[in-house]
Amino acid sequence: VTATLEALRRELPADAGVREPAAAELVDQTEPRGLRGRAEAVAEPRTTEAVAAVMRWCYEHDVPIVPRGGGTGYAGGAVPTEGGVVVSLARMTAIRAFDPLLWRIHAEAGVRTADLRRIARASGVWFPPDPGAAESSHIGGNIATNAGGPHAFKYGVTGAWVTGLEVVVPPGDVIRVGGAARKDVAGYDLRHLIVGSEGTLGIVTAAWLRLIPAPERSLPVIGLYPTVAAGCEAIQAAMASGIVPAAIEYLDGATMAYVSSTLPFRAPPGAFAVIVEADGSVAEAMAGREALEEALRPGAATVHAPLENDAIAALWRWRSGVSIAINAVRGSRVSEDIAVPVDRLAEAVTATLEIGARHGLEAMSWGHAGDGNLHSSFLVDAGDDAALALAERASDELFGVAIALGGTVSGEHGLGVLKNGQLRGQWPPRAVELHREVKRLFDPKGLLNPGTKLP
Amino acid sequence: VTATLEALRRELPADAGVREPAAAELVDQTEPRGLRGRAEAVAEPRTTEAVAAVMRWCYEHDVPIVPRGGGTGYAGGAVPTEGGVVVSLARMTAIRAFDPLLWRIHAEAGVRTADLRRIARASGVWFPPDPGAAESSHIGGNIATNAGGPHAFKYGVTGAWVTGLEVVVPPGDVIRVGGAARKDVAGYDLRHLIVGSEGTLGIVTAAWLRLIPAPERSLPVIGLYPTVAAGCEAIQAAMASGIVPAAIEYLDGATMAYVSSTLPFRAPPGAFAVIVEADGSVAEAMAGREALEEALRPGAATVHAPLENDAIAALWRWRSGVSIAINAVRGSRVSEDIAVPVDRLAEAVTATLEIGARHGLEAMSWGHAGDGNLHSSFLVDAGDDAALALAERASDELFGVAIALGGTVSGEHGLGVLKNGQLRGQWPPRAVELHREVKRLFDPKGLLNPGTKLP
Repeated sequence: VTATLEALRRELPADAGVREPAAAELVDQTEPRGLRGRAEAVAEPRTTEAVAAVMRWCYEHDVPIVPRGGGTGYAGGAVPTEGGVVVSLARMTAIRAFDPLLWRIHAEAGVRTADLRRIARASGVWFPPDPGAAESSHIGGNIATNAGGPHAFKYGVTGAWVTGLEVVVPPGDVIRVGGAARKDVAGYDLRHLIVGSEGTLGIVTAAWLRLIPAPERSLPVIGLYPTVAAGCEAIQAAMASGIVPAAIEYLDGATMAYVSSTLPFRAPPGAFAVIVEADGSVAEAMAGREALEEALRPGAATVHAPLENDAIAALWRWRSGVSIAINAVRGSRVSEDIAVPVDRLAEAVTATLEIGARHGLEAMSWGHAGDGNLHSSFLVDAGDDAALALAERASDELFGVAIALGGTVSGEHGLGVLKNGQLRGQWPPRAVELHREVKRLFDPKGLLNPGTKLP
Repeated sequence: VTATLEALRRELPADAGVREPAAAELVDQTEPRGLRGRAEAVAEPRTTEAVAAVMRWCYEHDVPIVPRGGGTGYAGGAVPTEGGVVVSLARMTAIRAFDPLLWRIHAEAGVRTADLRRIARASGVWFPPDPGAAESSHIGGNIATNAGGPHAFKYGVTGAWVTGLEVVVPPGDVIRVGGAARKDVAGYDLRHLIVGSEGTLGIVTAAWLRLIPAPERSLPVIGLYPTVAAGCEAIQAAMASGIVPAAIEYLDGATMAYVSSTLPFRAPPGAFAVIVEADGSVAEAMAGREALEEALRPGAATVHAPLENDAIAALWRWRSGVSIAINAVRGSRVSEDIAVPVDRLAEAVTATLEIGARHGLEAMSWGHAGDGNLHSSFLVDAGDDAALALAERASDELFGVAIALGGTVSGEHGLGVLKNGQLRGQWPPRAVELHREVKRLFDPKGLLNPGTKLP
């Protein structure tokens, strides 16, 4: 038991939930890349006021504060690399208000993404953001990373659905920016400034979220292509079809070599896959499906468009399982989430393979094609430190490619501790300086999630 | 000719376009409220570099800089109340890139909103934001105020369509945040911080904008109701209809008393009007129209749903003309744009009338009902200073109502100089302090649009 833990227990109210850290609270999805933190204590507050009390204590005693959601991040943003106190939002799970007919919900940060989506859906409304780990991730974490997912293509990322935030900012003040109103241009957009700030500016404790009526029907179409070029042409054809697809996903041939055998229909192995989806009313989804099938046909080896609910669910379940299936190939992988303008996607997909080959690493990518958002992976054997180091170098090259193609080093995972400082390559010096000063302004002592986003 | 003008002419390149101010460049739509600025010079640069040169000069010589778009603002954000140099973006009108099949356009700040919408539409794609003065307003100004309009209900405000910005920030540096890529979570969201900042943090010189395929058909439905309560019930019924209306507008009875006679169909005078729109493919728009007609029928005196293009255009033309028609009633009006949660709309509409009555002012409101966004007006005779002062007091009371209802003092016009400092009533002290520090961080000398947003 550390001195910090003892002091916190003594000085903070019981609902701050101070206790010893569990091993699982010191890591996130970057554990296979060797990232593990250390913490003197975990606080698992029940209330916003208790979060503020923890922050006040830490700020007074110069102790780092690392907010933690579902721990599903791929950049290490929830890993307490510099010690201190982990503030877990896991007990802040209240739905403070839910007005389905008014298309809105007010939820605490610890509500799981999938739970929130289910609550909404049961009343006929929909929260569109669907990041990969929705069953484990928290709304607060989604906001902290501005999480995306397949449906961000049509519906936008998490930030597009946030109308208000309750945030605890240093040295321990509760602020509310926005609320249930859908429009607000009175102040600078501090709401969007907090969204995606990865817990480095404040701790999100609750959010007012917009919802919309759920689409009646969502119909996917999958096309398989012999080459990257043919696949990327199909992606652009889907965009030129006149309809707005709900999602445009891809998996490259190297990925498909491992997962096509588990596809719920017969598919040529190693083809480049494009998955699109039409949604809306039944009639609209059917019409959209037809337009998308037509758009995906030229150059395709196979086009498959399931109509039965089970087959549709099986296809998306298969898509969701890709990440885990690829993890299992070698035990570990280094995965990055660059994003580029959609017309540069083919180049980024090819560059991923080339960079891998140059370093003798098995490489592949898949992701949110319509948003030009790749999940580029370099496979390594678990525990092979030399290969891991190579993969980290490969990632650095990949970041250079993303920037050269007019894109970004992170489309949805954030910089975390793994990419901290990478902004220097992407933004001009004056913008990087403003970025650093924004951090200093919110967190003058640099105690909030130190090492994340900024070095 | 002022000394500043002479010095600027001497020291800046010709493409900075330095000249004497025209009278029209010292005012915006707040002129009837008595707002008129003064400026020592106008710069009308042709290039981003020239904008930067002007800012560098001004920053070095401690001269205020007031960016100017189309001058269509209702809050005085483009009025140079403290003198200095007006930087007009009117000559930065290039479309730097337009890729309709990739759903994007890269436009300079001085492109008129309606021109950009027409350019997109001619290629089958659409830029949804449609603020009231789209024929005169500039994209740069829309970004500076985060402009809305009727279609913001379904499609979001201007900021939702901005993927990248080129901005000149003090002391005269050009920064680019974002670009053609549709996703980016690498840095803090400085893009959204600039959007809506009303020229107080930097001058937007160009933007990368998202587009979407244009809907094939847009079909309005208008319902007329005997009371505010019945009208607001219809608004909520439209939201509960299962479809996502493209727009949900309203005009209260006091407004309709002046404009219902020019409606393109027979209507009972003084009824509360609700206009909704269904859009999408032809089939989808027709189905949506039917659902919305049904939703609007209970409690309505009349429901009208034109199908012919001419009749539809006439209805929207009529809606767009309301603002001008009401201006003509007494020669002047004080108009505010509070926004509240949609379930508090009826209270805000009623409060507008009550506040007017208490001050002996003719009051009315109309606006973007689905977004809870009112344009509350108090009519005054042009030149009647006493009535104007009363109306300003009435506005202050209205801001109090907006805040008490969980809303905001500005849903789309911004604070400008008329509402500067109003944030103090709306945000907690620590948030207001962070807001002020953001300003200081970008503009330490306080020269950018002084008096706007912050006092």
